Amino acid sequence: MSERPTLLEQARAAREAARVLATLPGSAKDRGLCEMAGALRQHTEEILQANARDLESGEAARMSPALLDRLRLTPGRVESMARGVEKVRDLPDPVGQEEGWTRPNGLSVRRIRVPLGVVAMIYEARPNVTVESAILAFKSGNACLLRGSTSAVNSNRVLTGLLRQSLQASGLPVEAIQAVADMNREAIDEMARMRGLIDCLIPRGGAELIQRVVRTASVPVLETGVGNCHLYVHAQGDLDMALALALNAKTQRPGVCNALETLLVDGAVAPRFLPMLGAAMSERGVELRACPEARKHLPEARVACEEDWDTEYLDLILAIRVVEGLPQALEHISRYGTGHSEAIVTGDLAAARRFQREVDACAVYVNASTRFTDGEEFGFGAEIGISTQKLHARGPLGLKELTTTKYLVEGQGQVRP
Amino acid sequence: MSERPTLLEQARAAREAARVLATLPGSAKDRGLCEMAGALRQHTEEILQANARDLESGEAARMSPALLDRLRLTPGRVESMARGVEKVRDLPDPVGQEEGWTRPNGLSVRRIRVPLGVVAMIYEARPNVTVESAILAFKSGNACLLRGSTSAVNSNRVLTGLLRQSLQASGLPVEAIQAVADMNREAIDEMARMRGLIDCLIPRGGAELIQRVVRTASVPVLETGVGNCHLYVHAQGDLDMALALALNAKTQRPGVCNALETLLVDGAVAPRFLPMLGAAMSERGVELRACPEARKHLPEARVACEEDWDTEYLDLILAIRVVEGLPQALEHISRYGTGHSEAIVTGDLAAARRFQREVDACAVYVNASTRFTDGEEFGFGAEIGISTQKLHARGPLGLKELTTTKYLVEGQGQVRP
Repeated sequence: MSERPTLLEQARAAREAARVLATLPGSAKDRGLCEMAGALRQHTEEILQANARDLESGEAARMSPALLDRLRLTPGRVESMARGVEKVRDLPDPVGQEEGWTRPNGLSVRRIRVPLGVVAMIYEARPNVTVESAILAFKSGNACLLRGSTSAVNSNRVLTGLLRQSLQASGLPVEAIQAVADMNREAIDEMARMRGLIDCLIPRGGAELIQRVVRTASVPVLETGVGNCHLYVHAQGDLDMALALALNAKTQRPGVCNALETLLVDGAVAPRFLPMLGAAMSERGVELRACPEARKHLPEARVACEEDWDTEYLDLILAIRVVEGLPQALEHISRYGTGHSEAIVTGDLAAARRFQREVDACAVYVNASTRFTDGEEFGFGAEIGISTQKLHARGPLGLKELTTTKYLVEGQGQVRP
Repeated sequence: MSERPTLLEQARAAREAARVLATLPGSAKDRGLCEMAGALRQHTEEILQANARDLESGEAARMSPALLDRLRLTPGRVESMARGVEKVRDLPDPVGQEEGWTRPNGLSVRRIRVPLGVVAMIYEARPNVTVESAILAFKSGNACLLRGSTSAVNSNRVLTGLLRQSLQASGLPVEAIQAVADMNREAIDEMARMRGLIDCLIPRGGAELIQRVVRTASVPVLETGVGNCHLYVHAQGDLDMALALALNAKTQRPGVCNALETLLVDGAVAPRFLPMLGAAMSERGVELRACPEARKHLPEARVACEEDWDTEYLDLILAIRVVEGLPQALEHISRYGTGHSEAIVTGDLAAARRFQREVDACAVYVNASTRFTDGEEFGFGAEIGISTQKLHARGPLGLKELTTTKYLVEGQGQVRP
């Protein structure tokens, strides 16, 4: 392999490594993960120096303070990375789980969980995603090709270097974790077309990146999701609860996909609820964009236009619309929702059940914040993203979602009549 | 809607129907299926007349006898269609199955099985695929868009017409089953790009059709598979069993994806096995293409070239190669296999286990015919194809594989800290 391997060389090396990984016992993988956690701690200084170079370039390129913050590593953040590695090490290994049965003709059929093979991930800004993606792929027995953002290239290089050293030190195939060397945009399209070499491509990032990948790919893609999430305050909803849920879903962490974007409020309670909401949101610096009916009770709000219903703000902005009853709320969500997380606040059982039945989304909430759509919060221990697609996996993607199955059939010479 | 609806109109109507279907109880769907079975029986004559027109056009277009046979319907074949409908009716409904748990914060999380929504299928020649696809989609709560081959257009039109009449008679949404009216090739590409309208696209047909769909699609695709299947006769294999399995897998139905294409035989047993094999295969009219080493024991065989290892013949042709031990067999399968069905004949436990562990395919056999890779044979009751991809579903696709899940989360006002 030359100094800077081509993407094809890297993918082939990953494929080879994947063959070895697929047959490793869980204990061997866990030893590798121990080594990785140790290496991150031991080389914190080196990681921070590389990160400082990325931050310097980011400042020179006038990156926004929010983006710089996402890019920044600190001793505390490196320590959390190391702890994250240990946490994944302690999760059960999905590989090897099986179910089986015997057919009337005596054939034994077993369905056994196996790794996907080579998983490629394309992601943005935060360097901790490099470690997270690599170890989740590794724990589930997959080789990975990591393509992070140019702005984190130095941090990512050092991080993957340390993970690879740990593989080597543990007698594991080094090429199981690779940072894509070719940082051209075209490399993304090339990856998306590597059928037979890449088993699954996971874009983690903004809508634009995901769209690009989905439209280019002939490799199977696991889409992680845009979330245009709604909270519907039903006529029989507890308004104090509704206010608490709206504030939590909108302001606790506005930049993530399960944050609230549009609030729908029933006409019957709008006159009471909206003034409460307006005051509380303004206090937290949230900009409001409301339909004409809602603005009667929220004079400070800007006028919402059609585009607002369609927008995932990922910011302290909230769209508000008054609806006449549950059917209109369902209609709005069906039209503008992205199938991520949708919530209703209601004390009415029939309304709750109808909302859950008819809303077509990965997570449908009754009387709880949409912010709970998350692998840890659901109890999966870790997540690699939240899928809004319906095939393979919907909702938080854990270790199991990075695996597939194969059938092992054993007979005594059976033929098909 | 105009006389001949556009694809977009059809997809939108399917989407509407899917919303209704998703909330139907199993009993309502089963009543519809009863009605359909009855309608097929009652209108057999009408079906045969339409089929006669297709056969006439096929003969005029000099279609091969094999293809004409696939196209041909008889009273017996219509009766099997009707029985097939009843069989699917009697399968358990996958929709509504659920598992659930409560989180430490009191949130109840339930994962419930729901239909995909709108499933589109593109397939070739055989008109019974129309009925099979429609009822499997319907039983699993999906609306479907069916795009069959031009050569079966009259048969397909009558068949879908009867299914739609049955929906209407049962008070179910007629647009749940639709034959795509636009028979231009471009309609296939258009379907492959209908994100948001089509939830899943299933091409059932030859390698060319599947490749075209996979390369064009931005809609999620369930690939059904090309099968370049191998049987490896190990040095410790029972040669009589090996012969029986090879004959069954090659000749019992050569035109299907789980049929045998290449036989690998261990050098240690080649001198004894190949003459037996040669005689038996010749007797059944199978053409043999062998590597130079194999030809020493099969003088009648043609010389196999590189292309033969790569070919899914779907015909009475068998490629034969002598390998030196299990590692070389694994290497050959890894290089030329399509991840469908692979088999070993051996009495050696370690060899059997290593073969099962290292072969990366949807079904890996020990001492049984590859022809068993099939939804019915595995005990699933029905199948819509065999997936050779790793995401979503691998192996025979049953009713469950036409569904997805959603999370229903219920709280008492929980917010994320």
